[in-house]
Amino acid sequence: MDRVYVIGIGSTVFGKLPDSSIGELAVKAASDAILEAVVDRKDIGALYLGNFVSGMLLGQGILAGLVADGLGLGQIPATAVEGACASGGIAFRHAYLSVASGQTKMALAIGAEKMTHASTGLVTSALSGAMDLEHDGSSGLTFPGLFGLIARKYCDRYGATRDDVSAVVRKNKANGLLNPLASMGAALTLEEIGQSRPISDPIRLFDCCPAGDGAAAILLANEDVARDMLSLPIEVLATVQTRGAPHVGRMDDLCSFGATVSASREAFALARVSPKDISFVELHDCFSIAEIVDSEDLGLVPRGHGAAYAAEGRTAVGGDIPINPSGGLLAKGHPVGATGLGQIYECVTQLRGTHANQVANAEFGMTHNLGGTGVACSVSIFRRGNI
Amino acid sequence: MDRVYVIGIGSTVFGKLPDSSIGELAVKAASDAILEAVVDRKDIGALYLGNFVSGMLLGQGILAGLVADGLGLGQIPATAVEGACASGGIAFRHAYLSVASGQTKMALAIGAEKMTHASTGLVTSALSGAMDLEHDGSSGLTFPGLFGLIARKYCDRYGATRDDVSAVVRKNKANGLLNPLASMGAALTLEEIGQSRPISDPIRLFDCCPAGDGAAAILLANEDVARDMLSLPIEVLATVQTRGAPHVGRMDDLCSFGATVSASREAFALARVSPKDISFVELHDCFSIAEIVDSEDLGLVPRGHGAAYAAEGRTAVGGDIPINPSGGLLAKGHPVGATGLGQIYECVTQLRGTHANQVANAEFGMTHNLGGTGVACSVSIFRRGNI
Repeated sequence: MDRVYVIGIGSTVFGKLPDSSIGELAVKAASDAILEAVVDRKDIGALYLGNFVSGMLLGQGILAGLVADGLGLGQIPATAVEGACASGGIAFRHAYLSVASGQTKMALAIGAEKMTHASTGLVTSALSGAMDLEHDGSSGLTFPGLFGLIARKYCDRYGATRDDVSAVVRKNKANGLLNPLASMGAALTLEEIGQSRPISDPIRLFDCCPAGDGAAAILLANEDVARDMLSLPIEVLATVQTRGAPHVGRMDDLCSFGATVSASREAFALARVSPKDISFVELHDCFSIAEIVDSEDLGLVPRGHGAAYAAEGRTAVGGDIPINPSGGLLAKGHPVGATGLGQIYECVTQLRGTHANQVANAEFGMTHNLGGTGVACSVSIFRRGNI
Repeated sequence: MDRVYVIGIGSTVFGKLPDSSIGELAVKAASDAILEAVVDRKDIGALYLGNFVSGMLLGQGILAGLVADGLGLGQIPATAVEGACASGGIAFRHAYLSVASGQTKMALAIGAEKMTHASTGLVTSALSGAMDLEHDGSSGLTFPGLFGLIARKYCDRYGATRDDVSAVVRKNKANGLLNPLASMGAALTLEEIGQSRPISDPIRLFDCCPAGDGAAAILLANEDVARDMLSLPIEVLATVQTRGAPHVGRMDDLCSFGATVSASREAFALARVSPKDISFVELHDCFSIAEIVDSEDLGLVPRGHGAAYAAEGRTAVGGDIPINPSGGLLAKGHPVGATGLGQIYECVTQLRGTHANQVANAEFGMTHNLGGTGVACSVSIFRRGNI
């Protein structure tokens, strides 16, 4: 496999974007990535687009072809991929593979979603498609319900408190205030978080990431192309995709997602770095408890200490292992198919040293995108480039 | 790129299958492919699943992960891909690439769809997602409408008659009678076809492929694995994916799909064979006029002669270039995401020499899967193996 570099990035704001169609959002993000890299778009040989609910909420398929047409690309393979909330990370891996395997010298990964036009009921119903409807669906389980079970089990097993979990929300909402792409940043007290509206006990409103509209895009290139770029090259050291439990009955442990554990192990091995080398991580905090579990599954925080790390400020920017300096899903919102590419956008900005909430001396960045009950997972590791 | 071989195939009957879920259909087809090859399923390193309307008609996403779990595969990457009616062909290409690039020694491509439980209105609405809803959708154009325009233009330009077009239907419906996987085979006269219920002038009922339920699966392996197989190896000489017009306003010519022309040219070049080498083709006859246009776009029939070839019996088994000896979409039906893999199942069976409607001395087989208004296309060429 050849070395692969990020040479361009683009992202819309994540939030309520009623004036743009999903295609327009995707074309805008991808155009920005192409324009930033200053390359000839006829050299882009593959396009992958991550999306989850466009069919269900908009009735629109063929997004990959639509967006390729909107971008004025050639008759290249343009493929939509789906792995629930991990769709963006999966699109990224496939664009990576098309460059790494020598099929093309440049490839585009795009994630896009439009959700805020639909009612909460419709969005909840669409997102339930990330569960096995024959098992979890028929039991009445929802995602807030699942993460409620996880939170209860985690706090019981490891002695974490409501305030410990709230500390994750406080940090991410505060980080979001610094991020111009995040619409849902806020300065909140632990009390405001812990007293917010109950959703699915013990999950409360501020424990949940909001749905959103948005798109993000990453342009990848091989070493020959990247060498000629004016911008600092960011190398993709590893990008791994795994699958795990499609419903809660297949989870070995409520406090761990097996697909994350496998993906991170493989990513560390491929990248030849260890957890202590990672300068920061953008991980899948769809709920506050998810950030805690993810940080442990990724090997970045000792098992059972995720909540304490957050409460002690060890996951803030400036702490031992900054988690979600962008504000994460909790402050950026979760336009499902776009999220994984949005994480990589934030990661690349950090490694370039130009993030609005910059981690000092960021050298190795990690991203983690998780789908459903852990049915699909994408983990990537990046390095500030020397080429 | 390494050489890649088909080592196992599986398919359900295509038709009305109300007693099985989409996951069950996919697991059945894939299990048959694995069992036929007699391999250890832990050696299967990637799964790709083609599907188009499961989100819209069933509310179920994560099919790739669900099916991987149902098959008892490992924590391997399991990815759903979408390119409207070409989703199956796209899944096949990605499974091919994962073997050809050395990522894994074995990979599974599966296509699956469930449609017959839904009302005609819902199915029509879901299939409209294969159009650009902002352009064609808002104009009221439907797929029978589009192919009606194509049929009118084609017959006007080339002087083809109603009976010439009906000859395609008569042939495919008759071929379907011989195929145990086809539920919609029939012995029809030209008069019965030409007098059937008008759908979208000049398109009549028998010009349209029916929706369907079904699944098909192909197990691919590298040369080392294929050499140890007991069955006749079938080599994948080329599999090409292109993108074309996402709406009718972007078609250069109503009587040709640019994505098919590009894909077939590239496939012939990669396979190092020419149209005259092809023993038979399974192509995308979603409407009878589509078979005529496709056969010309693929370079198998001279431009403007597709209808005459059908009328003269030159595309029947035993003719110059047998087209859709399986009965095609017209007789098998079109469980959208499954169709591309179903075509490859038929093609492999022909090259093994065991098809119920066998083409004599079949050596090189071709498949062609087309999505939407030609927004996505997949063309593959196979050879009866010497390994």
